Amino acid sequence: MDQKWMRLAIEMAKNTMGQTSPNPAVGAVVVKDGRVIGMGAHLKPGQGHAEVNALKQAGDEADGATIYVTLEPCSHHGKTPPCADLVIERRIKRVVIGSHDPNPLVAGKGIEKLIKAGLEVVVGVCEEEADALNEFFFHHIRTKKPFVTLKAAMTLDGKIATESGDSKWITSTEAREDVHLDRHLHDAILVGANTIKADNPLLTTRLPHGGISPIRIVLDTSLSIDKKSNILTDDSAETWIVCGKDASIEKEKQFLSASHVRVIRMEQPTILLPELLNRLGEDKIASIYVEGGARIHGAFLDAKLVDRLIVYVAPKIVGSGKALPVFNGIGVMKMNDALPLTIESMTLIGPDIKITAHLQKGE
Amino acid sequence: MDQKWMRLAIEMAKNTMGQTSPNPAVGAVVVKDGRVIGMGAHLKPGQGHAEVNALKQAGDEADGATIYVTLEPCSHHGKTPPCADLVIERRIKRVVIGSHDPNPLVAGKGIEKLIKAGLEVVVGVCEEEADALNEFFFHHIRTKKPFVTLKAAMTLDGKIATESGDSKWITSTEAREDVHLDRHLHDAILVGANTIKADNPLLTTRLPHGGISPIRIVLDTSLSIDKKSNILTDDSAETWIVCGKDASIEKEKQFLSASHVRVIRMEQPTILLPELLNRLGEDKIASIYVEGGARIHGAFLDAKLVDRLIVYVAPKIVGSGKALPVFNGIGVMKMNDALPLTIESMTLIGPDIKITAHLQKGE
Repeated sequence: MDQKWMRLAIEMAKNTMGQTSPNPAVGAVVVKDGRVIGMGAHLKPGQGHAEVNALKQAGDEADGATIYVTLEPCSHHGKTPPCADLVIERRIKRVVIGSHDPNPLVAGKGIEKLIKAGLEVVVGVCEEEADALNEFFFHHIRTKKPFVTLKAAMTLDGKIATESGDSKWITSTEAREDVHLDRHLHDAILVGANTIKADNPLLTTRLPHGGISPIRIVLDTSLSIDKKSNILTDDSAETWIVCGKDASIEKEKQFLSASHVRVIRMEQPTILLPELLNRLGEDKIASIYVEGGARIHGAFLDAKLVDRLIVYVAPKIVGSGKALPVFNGIGVMKMNDALPLTIESMTLIGPDIKITAHLQKGE
Repeated sequence: MDQKWMRLAIEMAKNTMGQTSPNPAVGAVVVKDGRVIGMGAHLKPGQGHAEVNALKQAGDEADGATIYVTLEPCSHHGKTPPCADLVIERRIKRVVIGSHDPNPLVAGKGIEKLIKAGLEVVVGVCEEEADALNEFFFHHIRTKKPFVTLKAAMTLDGKIATESGDSKWITSTEAREDVHLDRHLHDAILVGANTIKADNPLLTTRLPHGGISPIRIVLDTSLSIDKKSNILTDDSAETWIVCGKDASIEKEKQFLSASHVRVIRMEQPTILLPELLNRLGEDKIASIYVEGGARIHGAFLDAKLVDRLIVYVAPKIVGSGKALPVFNGIGVMKMNDALPLTIESMTLIGPDIKITAHLQKGE
C-alpha cells in the first residue's frame, strides 16, 4: 500500500513540474487508518512546502498518521522552517520517503532528525519515479550547472532545412504545441543570434490554458541582433543577451533600455559554453532548453555539454545531401567515437515521432 | 467467432511470409460444430494451396463445415485445380474470406462461383490484417512492378558514415540480425556497385535457424565490380548484375562463367530505374529490399519509386555537417515538397529504433 500513496504524491508533484523552480517539485499525502486525511504539493517558490500543505489539511488528525513525501523532508531553515521539525511536532508516526535529498551537505539530515525523534522512517519507495520529478533540480544541486536539453525538429533524413534554406514547416502543429509544454518545464530557453535574425521568434510559452514563459537567453557575441527584435520589445518574459567582452557598449545600452533585458558580458572575446553554463548555474538556472539553430546545437554537442536530447522526427524526406543537417558541428571522425545515447522514450505526437534520449556520460 | 478463426488462419499465413512468392501467403481453417477439423497454409509455390491442405486434413468431416480462408479462393486452373471447385465439391456450407482477390481480371469470380453453388459467403473479415499478409503480392499484381522497400541504418542525426568515411558499426548486432529477417521476406536485395566494392558483402540471409536468401541484384552500369567479389563466387543465392547497354561484353562473359549469375543489360547507356523495375516485375520479382548505399537510396527517392522505408536509428550522434547523409540524392528545394510518409510502426530492436513508414502516394 505504501506504493499506492507514494504514487499519488508523485502524481501531484508531477503536475507542478515547471512551476516550483529553483525549488524541487514535491508531493505529500497524509494517511491514517487507511484513509487519506491530507494532500499537498509545493506550488510556488517562497510558499509552503508539500508537507506543510498536506499537514495543514490533516489538522489535528495528523497525530499518529503516516506521511508519504516524494523527497526527504528538509532539515534546515530556509524561507520556511524545517519540514522535519513540523512532521515531528504534528506527531506523525511514520514517514515514507521517495527520493533522497540530493544535496550532499544536507542529505540524510532530515531522516536522521526524524529517526532521533522516534519516528519510523522508510526511504526509497518508488524512488526512480520520484527522482524523475526533479532531474533538473538534482543535476543543478550536484553540478552547480543547469541541466541542458537540446531540442531539434528534423525530417526523417536528419534535415532542418532544404538546400535553398526553406524550413517551413518541418513538424506538425501538434509537435509545435508540445514544444510549448516543454518550454513551460524549463527555467530558460537558449537560441543563437541567427535564429532571432531569421525567424524573429517570441520564444514564449503559448498554450491554450496558459503556462510559464522561461527566461530567453540569446547567444549574440557581437550584440548584432536588431533592437526591434520581438524578444527585446516583448516584455512578457525576461531576455538575457550573452555577448563577448568586446561587444559594443552602445548597443548594450540600447538593449538595456527595456527593463526585462539583461546583458551578460563574457570575459573572453567569444562565448565559451562551459563558462557560460557555470555563470547561468550561479544565477539559479537549473535547466536550459536549447532550441537551436544547427550551429548552436553542434557547438553544445562538440563540447559534450548536452544532458538530454529531444528530437521531433517529421515523417518526410528532403533527400538531398546538400540540405542543412540537424547538427552542424565539428563532429567525430570515427563511428566508434559517436556520442552515445540511451533512448528514454519514443511517442507519436500527431504524425511526428518524439524521441527523448539521454547522453551517456563517461567515467 | 468468425474473427477468432480468421485470426488463426492469418497467424498461420503470417509464418509462411517469404516462402510462398510469387504466390501469396494464405492460411485456411475448417470448423464444424465449433471444433477445428482442419488447418492449412500454402507452404511453397507449386504445392497445394491453403484450402487444399486444410480440407485434406478435414477429410469427410468437411461436409457441412465452415472454411475460413485469408484470401478469396481461386477460380482458375493454375498449377493446381481451382480451390473454389474443391470447396464446393467437399460440400463446405459456409465460406468466410479475409482479402478480396487483388487481380482485377479474376476478382470476385471465386466468390461468384461459390454463391452460385449455394454456399453462404462472408467477405472482408479481418480484412486489413489479411491484406497486410500480401502487400508485396497485391502490389505486384496491380502494378506489374515490385514493391520497393528502402532500408537504411543511420545515427540519430541522419548519418551513415563520418566525414572520414568510417561506418563500422552504426547499429547493434540485434538490428543487423533483424535485417536478415527482412531479407528472408523479400524476393530480391538490391545494392549499388560501390557497396560491393567497399564492403564485399555476401548479401545472403544468415539466421540461426536458416532462412531464404533473396536474389542479389547489383546496379553496376559499367560492370566494374571485381570478378572475385563474394556475390560472384558464392552460389548460395542467385546474383543478377544490371548494366548499361555499352558495358564490356568481355566482362559479362567472365561474370556468366558462374551459373548462379545473370547479367541484365539495359537498352540505354545508363540504368533507368523505372525501366528496370518494369523488367524485374516481368521476371516475377514482387518485392525488392534496397540496402543502399546513399546514392542508390537517393536515386530511388528522387524517382519516387519507394513504397516503404525501414530506417534503423542508432542512439548516437556524429554531429558533423560534413558526414555522409543517409539519403544523398538531388532532393527537394521546398520543405512543402518533402516526400510525405506515414509512420506504420516504431519499435526498439536492442538499443536501436526501427521506424517503418510508407510513402504517401499522390492522386
